[in-house]
Amino acid sequence: MATSPIWASRPKTRGLVLDLIRSARTITRIELAEATGLTGATISEVVRELMGDGLVVEAGRGAPTGGKPRTLVQLNPLARYSVGIQLERNTCVIVVVDLAGRQVARTSFQGVATMPPEQALPLVASQIDALLATAAVDRDRVLGVGLVSYGPQDRRVGVLLTPQPTGKWLDYPVARRLAEILELPVLLDNDAAAAAIGEYWMGAVDPRSTYGCIYMATGIGGGVVVAGEVYRGSSSNSVEIGHISIDVNGDECPCGNIGCLENYAGPSALVRQALATPGLAQRLALDPAGADLLTEFARVAAAANAGDPDARGLVEQSARYLGSAAVTMTGLFDVDTIVLAGPSFAVASSIYQAVIQQEVDRRTFARRPIRCGSYRRSTGRTRRRWAGRPSSCRAS
Amino acid sequence: MATSPIWASRPKTRGLVLDLIRSARTITRIELAEATGLTGATISEVVRELMGDGLVVEAGRGAPTGGKPRTLVQLNPLARYSVGIQLERNTCVIVVVDLAGRQVARTSFQGVATMPPEQALPLVASQIDALLATAAVDRDRVLGVGLVSYGPQDRRVGVLLTPQPTGKWLDYPVARRLAEILELPVLLDNDAAAAAIGEYWMGAVDPRSTYGCIYMATGIGGGVVVAGEVYRGSSSNSVEIGHISIDVNGDECPCGNIGCLENYAGPSALVRQALATPGLAQRLALDPAGADLLTEFARVAAAANAGDPDARGLVEQSARYLGSAAVTMTGLFDVDTIVLAGPSFAVASSIYQAVIQQEVDRRTFARRPIRCGSYRRSTGRTRRRWAGRPSSCRAS
Repeated sequence: MATSPIWASRPKTRGLVLDLIRSARTITRIELAEATGLTGATISEVVRELMGDGLVVEAGRGAPTGGKPRTLVQLNPLARYSVGIQLERNTCVIVVVDLAGRQVARTSFQGVATMPPEQALPLVASQIDALLATAAVDRDRVLGVGLVSYGPQDRRVGVLLTPQPTGKWLDYPVARRLAEILELPVLLDNDAAAAAIGEYWMGAVDPRSTYGCIYMATGIGGGVVVAGEVYRGSSSNSVEIGHISIDVNGDECPCGNIGCLENYAGPSALVRQALATPGLAQRLALDPAGADLLTEFARVAAAANAGDPDARGLVEQSARYLGSAAVTMTGLFDVDTIVLAGPSFAVASSIYQAVIQQEVDRRTFARRPIRCGSYRRSTGRTRRRWAGRPSSCRAS
Repeated sequence: MATSPIWASRPKTRGLVLDLIRSARTITRIELAEATGLTGATISEVVRELMGDGLVVEAGRGAPTGGKPRTLVQLNPLARYSVGIQLERNTCVIVVVDLAGRQVARTSFQGVATMPPEQALPLVASQIDALLATAAVDRDRVLGVGLVSYGPQDRRVGVLLTPQPTGKWLDYPVARRLAEILELPVLLDNDAAAAAIGEYWMGAVDPRSTYGCIYMATGIGGGVVVAGEVYRGSSSNSVEIGHISIDVNGDECPCGNIGCLENYAGPSALVRQALATPGLAQRLALDPAGADLLTEFARVAAAANAGDPDARGLVEQSARYLGSAAVTMTGLFDVDTIVLAGPSFAVASSIYQAVIQQEVDRRTFARRPIRCGSYRRSTGRTRRRWAGRPSSCRAS
């Protein structure tokens, strides 16, 4: 279905048409009727409404196809805006995006997540106010706020179900409280699920595909999208791929499981391994008490890129562990593509992409042809996308 | 959705009403209208049609609720039949079931799977003919055949995508060829997915739940059902839980992956481990060249039940490995229940159930209450069902 599954699983006609216009960039009414199966009269009425609300504008004429050239319509990206907040362990990122998903303003700051929410949320709200003012975005045009964070949550109620970033956040009504302060609707979601939806929404993956997203920031999360619909499970706490066991004989994780991927392959594990590698910590000027894990991790990743053999060995090992989890994701969710997303894949993306692809190729029997990956740079992040081989010839 | 997802994902009204009658056993037209949201007139018309076709009969009057007592309707279970075939590595099982899913005839035989399909399928067809004749089931009343097997398959085309049981079966149009011989429709599906659907259809699980099924016969497969709809993925080759890695440092599997669950926890692994345990093979009279793996495995499982410490140790270890995979299934699919199904859980079911439950309890943080398991005996198999704790408080 050509709509963003985050907003509604059964989109209304108006939303469906708007999303088709968005994803097509320019489109004629005839093409909209063909794509939706609706009558020309219905489409004309819906487009008239959308134009009346300023969401859609006419955009010249399409190529002649024998008869009279048809008028194109397109989104008016400046008609509405929305706000995205990512609450990470150390960092909070806030973006303002227009109706086409283009970023018009961005800020990031540290420390807020370690405050109690009573103190943090008014600060976040004031940052949003400042950002909207700077970008000269009228509040009346802001549709709402999407707040994403890691770990288990009650998405429906808008509550984090984890004593992280601090114990005070557990069970705190974060979405409702922020909505009260901002007087805007606030939706809470898992960061990795949102990243997976984002890939679909930005047109980065075939809308008919079933794909998995591995999202690595300070932790490792995941999301799976089936033909445009995000897999939610019983409580929307699905695809916790950072906490699947890759080693049944491994160490216990604070989550209770044994041998969790994140403790072998995540940034925190890599920095720990680097600090324990003789000479490497000195060479890279790693700070054992480094306050910002991602900065320390980026040093290791950059050194791997630059050819430091110890750093490269650690990143390749991390990628092999991630490859094992990617094979599990392929075997369980039967995905045809795996997307690597999140800031921690950014620096050493070519190493991660190559090794994970290799593991999937080597450890998954394939009968369908491999769809080649592509590379793109968007919203300030480097991402690599590649096609995992499905397990369609796996002997069992 | 109150319909069997194997037949259609968007059931027609008639099928929906029939399935409601089936699952309710007896129901009034008023209750059908309430359950479907359809008008009383529509329900009356649909029920009239179903009665005209002999699928539904009236069944006395319901309890008076103030007004006139309402007439109950119920399924006529003998109106239609279907045939189920399970093609295993060694064994082929064929059942005839009535419209209520009750087994009316059953046969099982060995050897057919190791023949080439040109030879095997006519034998299977003649067994079906004999079974229908024995049970005095009129062919005109047989709706069709469901054929299930293990391993990757092209479900849409009805072709096995694995060189098993023998190389001749790979790419052979098994569903089409059997349909030609029988002159009946044949649907191919994965055995574990079919087992998962069966749990739903038989009313063994809450129809709103998201549950995972681990199916152990000679191999280990799986299925996940979300609110009555089976998770299919991109090619219906999903939840291959026997071939997820539980040990990143493990041995290579013929499937290409490393440290596959099946090679640690499956019947073949257990018999191998038992043969390598000094004294145990002799004690249990295991046959190193045993033709039927499941018979040899059942000896080990029975000895574990009877308290043989070596056998019990092996079964408990197998259960711990399965527990690790169950935790992965919970973390990725966010299931609220895990169902253990298949003949290889039958003999030592109490050990498997207890140890797997323990692993899930220990390795998954829970915030939602645990739903207690239940025990039932159906279609000649012992099955245990238990509620896995969801990962809703997992620290990440």
